[in-house]
Amino acid sequence: MSLCWSCCDARLTRCLEKHTVLGRDKTIIRKALTEEKHVSTKTSAADLVTETDHRVEDLIVSELRKRFPSHSRFIAEEATASGAKCVLTHSPTWIIDPIDGTCNFVHRFPTVAVSIGFAVHQELEFGVIHHCTEERLYTGRRGQGAFCNGQRLQVSRETDLAKALVLTEIGPKRDPDTLKVFLSNMERLLHAKAHGVRVIGSSTLALCYLASGAADAYYQFGLHCWDLAAATVIIREAGGIVIDTSGGPLDLMSCRVVAAGTREMAVLIAQALQTINYGRDDEK
Amino acid sequence: MSLCWSCCDARLTRCLEKHTVLGRDKTIIRKALTEEKHVSTKTSAADLVTETDHRVEDLIVSELRKRFPSHSRFIAEEATASGAKCVLTHSPTWIIDPIDGTCNFVHRFPTVAVSIGFAVHQELEFGVIHHCTEERLYTGRRGQGAFCNGQRLQVSRETDLAKALVLTEIGPKRDPDTLKVFLSNMERLLHAKAHGVRVIGSSTLALCYLASGAADAYYQFGLHCWDLAAATVIIREAGGIVIDTSGGPLDLMSCRVVAAGTREMAVLIAQALQTINYGRDDEK
Repeated sequence: MSLCWSCCDARLTRCLEKHTVLGRDKTIIRKALTEEKHVSTKTSAADLVTETDHRVEDLIVSELRKRFPSHSRFIAEEATASGAKCVLTHSPTWIIDPIDGTCNFVHRFPTVAVSIGFAVHQELEFGVIHHCTEERLYTGRRGQGAFCNGQRLQVSRETDLAKALVLTEIGPKRDPDTLKVFLSNMERLLHAKAHGVRVIGSSTLALCYLASGAADAYYQFGLHCWDLAAATVIIREAGGIVIDTSGGPLDLMSCRVVAAGTREMAVLIAQALQTINYGRDDEK
Repeated sequence: MSLCWSCCDARLTRCLEKHTVLGRDKTIIRKALTEEKHVSTKTSAADLVTETDHRVEDLIVSELRKRFPSHSRFIAEEATASGAKCVLTHSPTWIIDPIDGTCNFVHRFPTVAVSIGFAVHQELEFGVIHHCTEERLYTGRRGQGAFCNGQRLQVSRETDLAKALVLTEIGPKRDPDTLKVFLSNMERLLHAKAHGVRVIGSSTLALCYLASGAADAYYQFGLHCWDLAAATVIIREAGGIVIDTSGGPLDLMSCRVVAAGTREMAVLIAQALQTINYGRDDEK
């Protein structure tokens, strides 16, 4: 296939890492961070979107279309929210979260990232996550390692939950029953004497911290394929594990994940969790 | 009094902000972040301390003694853990947390800070918080404003809890009853439709985010005077409110706090909270 990853590697790298897409994203996002924002809600009062999410997504998609004119498949957060179908085929597919951590972004809380993943034959090939307020670029390419600003990433080797720092996110559903299970899951990990649980408001950056060995595990219900695509490549290339909360293989469309530095830790976390059902990305 | 704040302002600023104490802290902490650490516990399995906490505290105290030989009163986290009394008198007093976010530090999670506050006549005069992995120096001086790397800080003016980003920390006690109340407090705020709750693992940096307008409120039970001293000056000088969780005036020794950009928000948070009793710093 003429459009597969290996054919466009150099262009992709140039396009994503250095000058164009992410450089412009950063400029837009940093500027917008200091400005008043028009905020709308999506699935709940806590599921926010701004004009900057749309603007950055449009910029990324149009730039990628220009540079890879034969790539016609994009799964992008705001297009999906507007009704586009979210289906991963065998074709080369870009999976985009223009602003991960929109609630943080609205509040000028600087834990905000752009996430771009790339899949061919339903296999995740490449991921780029840009922590644009801190000038950190996380990259991972299947079989080629994971890096932050050129420095190789390596996950933690911790297997003992009682020595673990665990990351999670609250998720957009805020009905009483969902909140009860979210809090009960946190309680179970703290009862198991995890050193701590952190909630930073950006799934992709939390997963990057995991990839860099700064935490031992991550779990979440209610995240989406655009939160996971790039980060999954980065974590796996840093030596980590990304699985379903059932303990089985990751299903990118299932809106749930456990990631960890070691399989033992991932299984311990999965066993501790009670499920919150968010449906599937490809059935919405 | 020859040792009051006004007499040593220039030396203090030079000492703390530019070259000596914080520059050396940063070097020690950054280097230690990449190394294996010998970790001990204090009040609970989640209340951690490393040799770096002791080393940085000793460095700060010895440097301050050298530069301000007539200042004899220091309240510092690790000295207090080793049995030193924690009493705020009318004398010039330095209040020091050598590494705030020790659990993060142990895990190489880069949300770690050094906090140094200064009080005279039991009044907080000056605060410096150094986010040493991100090169951010937060400073506040009573009546003179608050700054981050020289840029003036301004709190959020939000008064509506349903539009608030709220920060908190879990605290060191992990017995089932304490955890129940901690989680119930988080649940109350999420039921009240706060946009989100974040737990980043460093009280002082969370309070700095509040001072910079990146969040609307902060509350915690189980923090100490060395977590609060510097941050309180910085928040107040950024236009914010720091009060007791009862809604009354802040008591630096009471191990509890609500801080917010506006009084309305602080009162709403205080009213929502159920108390966790951590005793008092000056009665331990």
